[in-house]
Amino acid sequence: MKKYADMTREELLAEREEVQALYDALKAKDLKLNMARGKPSTEQLDMTSEMMDILRSDSDYICDGIDVRNYGNLEGLPSCQKLFAEMLGTKPENIFCGGNASLTLMYDTIAKAYTHGRVMSEKPWGKLDKVKWLCPAPGYDRHFAITQSFGAEMITIPMTAGGPDMDLVEELIRDEAVRGMWCVPKYSNPDGIVYSDETIRRIASMKPAAKDFLLMWDNAYCMHEFFGEHLPFPDILSECEKYGNADMVFEFASTSKITFPGAGVAVFACSPNNMAYMKKLMNIQMISFDKVNQLRHVRYLKNKDGVIALMKRHAAILGPKFRCVLDWLEREIAPRGLAEWEKPMGGYFVSVNTMPGIAKETWRLSKEAGLTMTGAGATYPYGKDPLDSNMRVAPSLPPVEQLEQAMEIYCVSMRLAALNKLLAG
Amino acid sequence: MKKYADMTREELLAEREEVQALYDALKAKDLKLNMARGKPSTEQLDMTSEMMDILRSDSDYICDGIDVRNYGNLEGLPSCQKLFAEMLGTKPENIFCGGNASLTLMYDTIAKAYTHGRVMSEKPWGKLDKVKWLCPAPGYDRHFAITQSFGAEMITIPMTAGGPDMDLVEELIRDEAVRGMWCVPKYSNPDGIVYSDETIRRIASMKPAAKDFLLMWDNAYCMHEFFGEHLPFPDILSECEKYGNADMVFEFASTSKITFPGAGVAVFACSPNNMAYMKKLMNIQMISFDKVNQLRHVRYLKNKDGVIALMKRHAAILGPKFRCVLDWLEREIAPRGLAEWEKPMGGYFVSVNTMPGIAKETWRLSKEAGLTMTGAGATYPYGKDPLDSNMRVAPSLPPVEQLEQAMEIYCVSMRLAALNKLLAG
Repeated sequence: MKKYADMTREELLAEREEVQALYDALKAKDLKLNMARGKPSTEQLDMTSEMMDILRSDSDYICDGIDVRNYGNLEGLPSCQKLFAEMLGTKPENIFCGGNASLTLMYDTIAKAYTHGRVMSEKPWGKLDKVKWLCPAPGYDRHFAITQSFGAEMITIPMTAGGPDMDLVEELIRDEAVRGMWCVPKYSNPDGIVYSDETIRRIASMKPAAKDFLLMWDNAYCMHEFFGEHLPFPDILSECEKYGNADMVFEFASTSKITFPGAGVAVFACSPNNMAYMKKLMNIQMISFDKVNQLRHVRYLKNKDGVIALMKRHAAILGPKFRCVLDWLEREIAPRGLAEWEKPMGGYFVSVNTMPGIAKETWRLSKEAGLTMTGAGATYPYGKDPLDSNMRVAPSLPPVEQLEQAMEIYCVSMRLAALNKLLAG
Repeated sequence: MKKYADMTREELLAEREEVQALYDALKAKDLKLNMARGKPSTEQLDMTSEMMDILRSDSDYICDGIDVRNYGNLEGLPSCQKLFAEMLGTKPENIFCGGNASLTLMYDTIAKAYTHGRVMSEKPWGKLDKVKWLCPAPGYDRHFAITQSFGAEMITIPMTAGGPDMDLVEELIRDEAVRGMWCVPKYSNPDGIVYSDETIRRIASMKPAAKDFLLMWDNAYCMHEFFGEHLPFPDILSECEKYGNADMVFEFASTSKITFPGAGVAVFACSPNNMAYMKKLMNIQMISFDKVNQLRHVRYLKNKDGVIALMKRHAAILGPKFRCVLDWLEREIAPRGLAEWEKPMGGYFVSVNTMPGIAKETWRLSKEAGLTMTGAGATYPYGKDPLDSNMRVAPSLPPVEQLEQAMEIYCVSMRLAALNKLLAG
């Protein structure tokens, strides 16, 4: 197979004729496929459903001397704090157990910075003239949506193989208006990159001009290997503390992709100083999150080893799906030189960087042939990918048979988009 | 028995000697009793525990064509919207199903007014010089804590037998800085007053100077009779709509005191215009609240009649407790002329208005004798009761035997406080 870039015009025209025929045939099948969101599959949900009737008799509801059904215990059930502390490698008292969505905890952390300020802020961010925010990209669209919603000016930070471009980050944080940064440090969304020790050290030791700089450390995939063994990962709280930055970071995690996407338990982890401040503010907002659901998780997952064992069962379902995606790309895209991608070992996505200028068109062609993908550009602040190149592939929901069809459409669409681009250019 | 106000100094001194002896004897018992918060009792919790293992097999999780375990459906499960719509007398599409805490939904509604403004606001409240807020009092301390936390200037509105003093409200809303008002319209916290039709009409037809005035209608006790039959109550959404005020109001309710205080379902209800705006903002904050728990509630409670039947079982437990409190007050306090109180038919509290100047001292004496009560003053904005008179009695948690002891301490403490006041004055 020849790289498209090395083809003559005649060869490209012949190739286009062939690919157009393939595309038309696929379109004629009138399929309806979806690789848009990181949704677990029904098979995964069924696997953990047994958790939901684990509490049966009245005495089951007593844990840590607490009746979990009643009001109280703002920071959550101590046994649940302990479970997450083990998973994240921090102390139980640094964990705040929330409801079913880490996204809500992230939103609220930033909302409170705007309305009340952070623990060390001179004034609430809502009173500042300008808030700028560092956004390693490609990144998670829902992160960017939060900072956009609060009117922050988002600055794109390119990703390297070891994480965000730290040279640029260290340059930009000299600006006091830069108040925070999004990170998905392990199996980053969407690249699947694991931040290197060096990147983590440089992040933990940052000296931002803004004294109330907020590092949003979304450890969404802390336990989420789909190939190979569980990968230990540094505890960002103690890393930051090491460099006098204990109060800079909030870490987030959840069981959304361990137990139930819509009915898991989410947490944040932070320094004692941050925790005392947040509890003071959150005590106004709630009496506690749902401790019954926290207890279900404790009883079902038991401890970190219990989580690792369960994640192996998820991996048995997810692994073949990622294998399918990577095989298609390797076979159909790599030899033609149309895109590059990381080969993740965990997380929920494969991030494909096409030749510049064809991501949107690949998305459109896929859509027309019955395949819904994450919007091209969605992985960048304001939905604007400067190179029109990055596409997020989310293979978790469809069964492998459907993925085969979806990847066929995707690869043919990308080839057609590339040919049209090359022939027009 | 003689009213204290009619006693001579000699009679008061004799009475104090006797009451002091009673008090000392009670204190010597070294009891530990609590009537501080509206916490349901273990007996009530045990009654509904069966709800928690209602979902067992994989197919149980499909409802309204939705797999409730997965992501999606921001506004909640349609069947759950329907259940609450029936309870509140509104349309399902006006209901947003949340997590376990209506307090959080209330906080977030106000937080969003500050960070993003209301749907009709010219600018976010955070950008206004001043926000004033109307607080009918005695009222709910956690309501006042929210508006205080956001820096609103709270204005106390006296309560009448039919609800807030509407003459004063109508006067104050001519000030454009007045942006909102707290209401607990049915079995108000703490008075247990049901707002009259006339009060509701005057509230629904208000014409505040502030175009984005926010009526916070906390219908916390919409189904919560402990004496007698279920009391139908007007739907505030259609009442407001009738007077061109459809977008003025947000109504709140929950099952915290129907199923589980810490693991129920909370909702807000609002106009289509408000709903579209809130969904746009909340879509940034979450994918959805916990739909599995919403489904549990639907399966267990079924419909409004199911809720009414369950509330009768709660009433069988709560009724005797309220009877106990009211009997003690009637027997020990009324003839001595030391306090007045409403006789509620539902809700979670009895609100006692002592003679001026002895609420704090009654609280202190009760505390010293082993009885924790809601802090005197807590029912007023900033914790400041101008008359030092209102005390909230919360009899739901202790068993009746303990309540008898608690009320004995409470009544003796009030008598002693009154005697000390009268003799010092």
